[in-house]
Order: sequence, then C-alpha cells, then structure tokens
Amino acid sequence: MDPAVCRDAHCVSLLTDFGNIDGYVGAVKGLLLSVNPRLTLVDLSHDIESHDVVQAAYVLGRHYRYFPRGTVHLAVVDPGVGGKRRGVVVESADWLFVGPDNGIFSHIYDELEAAIFAIDEASLLPQQPSDLFHARDIFAPIAGRLTLGLPACEVGSPLDECVSIPLSRPLTTARGIEGHVIHVDRFGNMVTDIPIDLVRSEIGETECVIEVADRKIEMIRRSYDCVEAGELLAVFGSSGFLEISANMRNAAELLAAARGEPVVVTCR
Amino acid sequence: MDPAVCRDAHCVSLLTDFGNIDGYVGAVKGLLLSVNPRLTLVDLSHDIESHDVVQAAYVLGRHYRYFPRGTVHLAVVDPGVGGKRRGVVVESADWLFVGPDNGIFSHIYDELEAAIFAIDEASLLPQQPSDLFHARDIFAPIAGRLTLGLPACEVGSPLDECVSIPLSRPLTTARGIEGHVIHVDRFGNMVTDIPIDLVRSEIGETECVIEVADRKIEMIRRSYDCVEAGELLAVFGSSGFLEISANMRNAAELLAAARGEPVVVTCR
Amino acid sequence: MDPAVCRDAHCVSLLTDFGNIDGYVGAVKGLLLSVNPRLTLVDLSHDIESHDVVQAAYVLGRHYRYFPRGTVHLAVVDPGVGGKRRGVVVESADWLFVGPDNGIFSHIYDELEAAIFAIDEASLLPQQPSDLFHARDIFAPIAGRLTLGLPACEVGSPLDECVSIPLSRPLTTARGIEGHVIHVDRFGNMVTDIPIDLVRSEIGETECVIEVADRKIEMIRRSYDCVEAGELLAVFGSSGFLEISANMRNAAELLAAARGEPVVVTCR
Repeated sequence: MDPAVCRDAHCVSLLTDFGNIDGYVGAVKGLLLSVNPRLTLVDLSHDIESHDVVQAAYVLGRHYRYFPRGTVHLAVVDPGVGGKRRGVVVESADWLFVGPDNGIFSHIYDELEAAIFAIDEASLLPQQPSDLFHARDIFAPIAGRLTLGLPACEVGSPLDECVSIPLSRPLTTARGIEGHVIHVDRFGNMVTDIPIDLVRSEIGETECVIEVADRKIEMIRRSYDCVEAGELLAVFGSSGFLEISANMRNAAELLAAARGEPVVVTCR
Repeated sequence: MDPAVCRDAHCVSLLTDFGNIDGYVGAVKGLLLSVNPRLTLVDLSHDIESHDVVQAAYVLGRHYRYFPRGTVHLAVVDPGVGGKRRGVVVESADWLFVGPDNGIFSHIYDELEAAIFAIDEASLLPQQPSDLFHARDIFAPIAGRLTLGLPACEVGSPLDECVSIPLSRPLTTARGIEGHVIHVDRFGNMVTDIPIDLVRSEIGETECVIEVADRKIEMIRRSYDCVEAGELLAVFGSSGFLEISANMRNAAELLAAARGEPVVVTCR
Repeated sequence: MDPAVCRDAHCVSLLTDFGNIDGYVGAVKGLLLSVNPRLTLVDLSHDIESHDVVQAAYVLGRHYRYFPRGTVHLAVVDPGVGGKRRGVVVESADWLFVGPDNGIFSHIYDELEAAIFAIDEASLLPQQPSDLFHARDIFAPIAGRLTLGLPACEVGSPLDECVSIPLSRPLTTARGIEGHVIHVDRFGNMVTDIPIDLVRSEIGETECVIEVADRKIEMIRRSYDCVEAGELLAVFGSSGFLEISANMRNAAELLAAARGEPVVVTCR
C-alpha cells in the first residue's frame, strides 16, 4: 500500500459475530480509539451467526470495496481464538485487512493482489493477552497502529500460504449453468454464485429459465415491481450475481430454501 | 437552506429496513465516507419492518428535530426500488432529507416548510447503478455531495407534488377524542395520534378516562412509577402525544394490541 | 478528573435498554452532537433486557476501562425515570459516568475512587423535560456539556450516598469456592463471579474441578479448542473471571442454565 494512503487512513470497519448485547464490540472500539482517537468506526456486521466464517467471508467480500482507500477492515469471526491459528494482516493496494487466518479473507485473496503478514512481532503484542478475546487484545491494537502509519510488513513474518475456504463456483454444463445459493439476506433475497456476465454470455437474460427448489422462474427482471406482489422473480443483484427474490415477500421462506440450495439456469 | 448551514453540515443520519446482518448499511456508510471522509454517521434505525414505509415515516418524523442543523437525513425503506418511483431531496430551513418519493417523508411535509427536488440531474447519477440498491448507488453519493455543499436545487427538477401517506389524526366527537395507536415501541409503550394539547384543552389531564382494548384507564400520570408495577397507565409521551404504558411491563402484550388499535379519551 | 483530560474528551459511550428499532438512541445522539458536533459516539449496548439494571451495570463494569481517558460513559437503563430517583454524574480519575442513581454504576463504585454529584443545578436543566425520556432531555445535554469542559462538580450537589446493587461475590468454604453465573453472553459463555486469582491461589488451575448444573468439568483450559467440538470446558475469561463454555456450542443452552446458576470450584 502506498504509504500516503495509510497515513491518511482513518476509517476502520468492524465485522464480527459478537452480537450487540454484551458490549464486546464497544470494548474493541474503545481500544481502537485509545490508540487513535481520530478514527471513524463503521460496523459492517456483528450479527454473523456464531462461528460462521463462511458467512463472514461472504459479507466482507461483498462490501469491502465500497469503503475509502486506506480503510482497515477488522474482521473477527474466530472460533479457534487462542489456539494454533495465526493472526494476519492482509495488504492490498487500497485496503488493509486484520483478523484470524481461518479463511475469513478467502474472497479477498480471490479478488485482490495482496501481501500477507503473520502478526508475530513480539514488540507489538501485549504481555498477557486474553486467549479468548484477540479482537480486543491483539487485532484492535494492531489495526489502530496501522491507521497511524505502521507499515503492514512490520507486524511480522511474510506468509506465502494461508487458510482459504473453497469458494462456491457455478459449473457450465450441457444442461446450463449450475450454481448454488451462497447467501440469504434479511429480506429473503437468495444470492447465488452465478455471475451476471456468465448468464448474459452463455444464455441471455430474456431467454433464460431459472430452476430452484422445484420452481421455474422465467427471465431476469430489472426490479422487484416487474412482477405482482408476492411473486417470485430472478434479478441481477447489486453484487453482480444472480439473485432469487419475491416482490414484497421473503423468497427464502416461500421456497423453504437456504444457503447451499442448488440453482440451475437453462435456456427455454 | 442557508448555504452556511450546508457547508458546515457533517452529520448524516441513516434510517432503513436493511437490518444489521448483511452489511448493506456498512456499504452505504463506506460510500458516504468515500465522498466525504469527515462525516459523522448516526443510525436512526435499520430494523424497520421490511418494506414498512409507514413505520419508517413515523420514526423519522419523531426524531429528526433532535439532530444538529444541517444534518442530512438519509431514509431508505424502498420496496419500489428501481421501479417508477422517483428519488427526492427535501430541503427545509434546518435539515435535508434524501430518499425515495414513496411517502417516507410524509411527517416532514406535514410539519416543515420544504422545497422538494427530484434526483434526476444526469451528471450526478452513476453510469450503471444497481436497480436494486439505490441507497448505495444513488442516495448515498447524493447525500455525501450535499454535505460537501452541493445546493439541493442542483440535484434535479423542483417538484410541486410528491407522494404522501395519509397521517392518522384523532377526531373530536360528542363522545370525546377518538384516535389510534400509531406506534408500539420496544418496551410495549403504545404511542397514539392524540396530541397532549388536545387532551388538555378538550378534557383535562385529571378528568379524563382512556378507553383502549376493553380497558379503562383513569387520568394522565407523570411517570411510570405513579402506578404499581405491572399496572396500566396513560402518560403524556416524550413525543408530545398520549401514550398507553404499563409500569415495568409491556402494555401492548398485556392488551394484545398493536398499531391501529382505537383509543378513546372521554371525560369521567 | 484532571481538567486537561476533560477538555480533550471527545468520546461518549452509550449503554441503554432502548433497542435499535424505535430511533430513541438516534435522538440521544442527535442531541449530543447538537451540543458538541466533534464527538465520537460509541455504542456499548442498547439491547440490555428492558429495565434490567443489573445486566447494564455488569456490561458497563466489564468494558468501561477499555475506553480512552476522558470518555463520558452515558448509561441509561432507567425504569424509575421521572420518579424520585436522582440523576448523577460520577467522576473518577480517568472517566466520567452519567445516568440515573439506581445502581447502574455499582461496579464503578466498587472498582474506582469517584466523586458523585446529583444533577440538580437548575440553570443546566431544560425548562420542560419529558418525564419519560431523561436520556434525551437531561443526561445527553449534561454529557455533551461535560465533553466541552464543564466541571463535574458544577452539575449539582455532591453526594455522600447513592444507590448501589449488592454485587455477587463468591464464598470460600470448606468445600471450595462457591460462586454464581453473573452473565450469559451471545455465545452462551457463562461468566461467573469467581476471580481467576482466587482459583489460582486457593486451588490451582490444573487441580480444580468445576461443578455446575449437575456436571463436573476438570481443570481450566487456555482456549476453546483444547476440548472436542461440542464439549464443555472451563476457561479464565477475558474479564478476569472464571467462565463455563463449550467449544463451538452454546454452553448455557447445553446446561439449561442462566444467570444466578451456582458454580462450585473444588479440588479433585
């Protein structure tokens, strides 16, 4: 990262499964502000399902790019806290990422050129961190220092390999495009792993039929109100992937479907 | 709005039905900070019921006035996103409002003198916005620009008419004041559409009897502990309207009542 | 508090039972920013159970120390709002606390040397505060003024006595250390009132057996992954107290236990 970007950095995003009841997120923010009182702190989510690294990786991968250059993304869904897993800083041209090396940065590795450093420089680590709350005792102080200009390479050893979760990818077969639901959002929108461009190039958005949970949906619509209230439709979602939705209704409930549900796009 | 107010503006409030799980609010905030890194961002609510424009309009109408002059209130509960509904900027003497033209600003129109502008100036719009996430792709960039001093009138065409939801109003009849519950809050407090001043002028706060859900409540109390724990009472709420509450208990659950429940104030 | 600390103060933490749906927290923040636009606002929690002063006192006591010197902690879980209970400002060497005098600061009184002042200086109070929303109408303006340098002693009369909740404490008996669960967090971790140091000095961390809800747990582990997934374990929690947890599972659900559950540490 260009040192000038890092020096200007004053935004830290936070992504955890800590919830908003117990005050854990507040303690992490207090720590960050103790290191750098001028930070702007933005919650990405704290209601990731407990220990669900896959969901956290998805949410981070979907939204990191909308933050200012120099933002430090602090992402801690960390069931292995205090065990053998390492802590890492991931440095790309425009953003920094801090968290456990457990796959939470899988989408980042997939999309960005990045250098990765293990957080193992002894002089930066607390004398007696809690082995159960590295977000507060290790990751927050490191993130705070990075916003003050600490070069990422100084947090510890460069890494050639790190943990990555296999990402869901669609297959193009004789039948069409075979993918899966990778996220269900608050509204019941079912986001798939099928890129818009793939549908456009392989089949076309008006000629396609989407098969999901024993239902068939014809063509891709531009907006929810293209169908009657309560009806299913397929749209090109705001993340660039095919989504299954329902106008004014929860599509996932309607289909009794969840993450992992197969979705097939064929030509009619 | 006085240009000086707008230039100093550095607070943006956010009101949506996006929830706090999926990271959508984080993306909107990242966008805002990309436009103006010095913003102070305040969540008004993101847990409005999905698509419930009436509830969103109420929450905005109740709280907007407590924010600093120059605050931009970004309010997006937007089931018609990407369809025919317009986006608007509403400019009053002290605050700006940005969101869809679907009635979410009904209380603002009712309470404030305001100029309204459609967001249709092509040079301000993105080349390829998602038709499903205008909060991120259209409203946030516009709100950010407004905090940097963009005059509201430059976002597009002035509007004479816009969408307004009929607001619930009490009737004064021979029987007394007949109103309705318009909001039930987290504590089970039932806020009505009956203004304090109307009760005072028509009946008086010690002489009145409130009828709701087959119960009768005598007089208006000053605070919850004026009755025994668990008992119903009527109070003049902090928004200036009559509320039905219970001391240390959820009144709405106790009465099995919800938004829309009739409330009648009579003289005993 | 050193006047220099107070003048630099620009962080206010917020702890309430207001929830995040109705916009009450937003109104409080708007008020704070109207008094001091340069504040950094941090949510500690707004999802404390309605009226649960004990839980609020615990969350505040656990996390206040991680905030920068000069932070004003605004803590309002306040079932007696508008009644006889006083409002107070509590001043310690490093932090200020503002809220109702109902026991919410019990852990603060227990841990810090502090001066306490009733908020009763008439010139600082609004003409017509709502008796139902002191957080917005009294505590937020006072907190805002404190961040601008108002000395705590000027908010009103010094107090010698104030309301304190009896804190849960373990007993050391012939049987061992007898304590209780004082908090169950989002993950189902059960925090006890038994300090780490007491276990270490009385019994030792490898020799001890923890009895809880008819189960026996041997020794203290360093991290969750020291046992198989789904299994119970005891750890020294990040707050310095003994905790009962389960690896990748909700211990409180597993044990059908809640706050108040007895926990006994014996020597095997």
